[in-house]
Amino acid sequence: MAKRVTGPEIEKLIQLLAKVPGLGPRSARRAALHLVKKKDQLLGPLADAMGEAHRKVRICSCCGNIDTVDPCSVCTDVQRDRSVIIVVEDVSDLWALERTGAMNTAYHVLGGVLSPLDGIGPDDLNIASLVDRVAEGAVRELIIAVNATVEGQTTAHYITDRLDGLEVKITRLAHGVPVGGELDYLDEGTLTAALKARTAF
Amino acid sequence: MAKRVTGPEIEKLIQLLAKVPGLGPRSARRAALHLVKKKDQLLGPLADAMGEAHRKVRICSCCGNIDTVDPCSVCTDVQRDRSVIIVVEDVSDLWALERTGAMNTAYHVLGGVLSPLDGIGPDDLNIASLVDRVAEGAVRELIIAVNATVEGQTTAHYITDRLDGLEVKITRLAHGVPVGGELDYLDEGTLTAALKARTAF
Repeated sequence: MAKRVTGPEIEKLIQLLAKVPGLGPRSARRAALHLVKKKDQLLGPLADAMGEAHRKVRICSCCGNIDTVDPCSVCTDVQRDRSVIIVVEDVSDLWALERTGAMNTAYHVLGGVLSPLDGIGPDDLNIASLVDRVAEGAVRELIIAVNATVEGQTTAHYITDRLDGLEVKITRLAHGVPVGGELDYLDEGTLTAALKARTAF
Repeated sequence: MAKRVTGPEIEKLIQLLAKVPGLGPRSARRAALHLVKKKDQLLGPLADAMGEAHRKVRICSCCGNIDTVDPCSVCTDVQRDRSVIIVVEDVSDLWALERTGAMNTAYHVLGGVLSPLDGIGPDDLNIASLVDRVAEGAVRELIIAVNATVEGQTTAHYITDRLDGLEVKITRLAHGVPVGGELDYLDEGTLTAALKARTAF
């Protein structure tokens, strides 16, 4: 803005909100106004929640999940089958898989995928700690649930190579038609995979 | 989520972020993860900025603008022509008009528009304070810059009625073709208004 029309504290709030993914400069202004208008119902509680999260948040030293305790709630959950580890790229993938409720296992968050062009090598990911967890011998199955991208698949192959010689079953997610998906809109690779992996009716 | 996969502090943060306009439940999760990952660069500063805004934000008792001082930066700006007041619905409209840099005047924020169906009457808007400001006699022109909606226009008419008898010139924004707009996509009302208000080339 050319001239000052509001306080520097509010302009700073707008600038910081614009860095939140999902908000741009324009929606950050709209969000800031909304927050300021609901200052006791929303702005205050949100400020407190952010401060609390900032003070307490930890990255789990075992699996890489984000929590306020270390080891995290998933790693310390005695109800889970800790002999199965699902390997994911990011914490958001762990949360997405947990929302399905389909599995009740442990996890391992890589923190990304191998990407030589971006300068991301094996040492930048939590691969060594995964190898250590498997080497301890209590792991029966490793489900590699990385994204179905070139980088994801490269990373999956690299991990299987690193685990070579260790006694663990390594599996990956099935390829196929997404539930609710229309064949017409699917790419050839997905359709080919779905045909090859066809199951009895 | 069915089972606890992260700390209650982080889940609370997600719930509150989901109430920010522009973010839904899914993007709130993504935003929370991003904030937590950048906890020192973004989460901490944002928590502080929100706390600061929460403590300091004031609604200007003169014009209704939002600022950290009262009267606000606009009302106390001696460089502005305070004999002209632009009447807007919302603080966001004030900010939008200021971004044009076209005018250098005072403002008055109504805080909404008359809307009997939503139970919003004249007493719910900052109309009495506008009449008081005009009645003081120092105002030469009132530019009514409400939205070009039925409620906006009704509100504009109501305000002109309330100011009847006071010595002030009342104007409103021009209707016409938006700059960069294509005639083909415009409604008949806008085209009719643009034709009627045609100007010499």
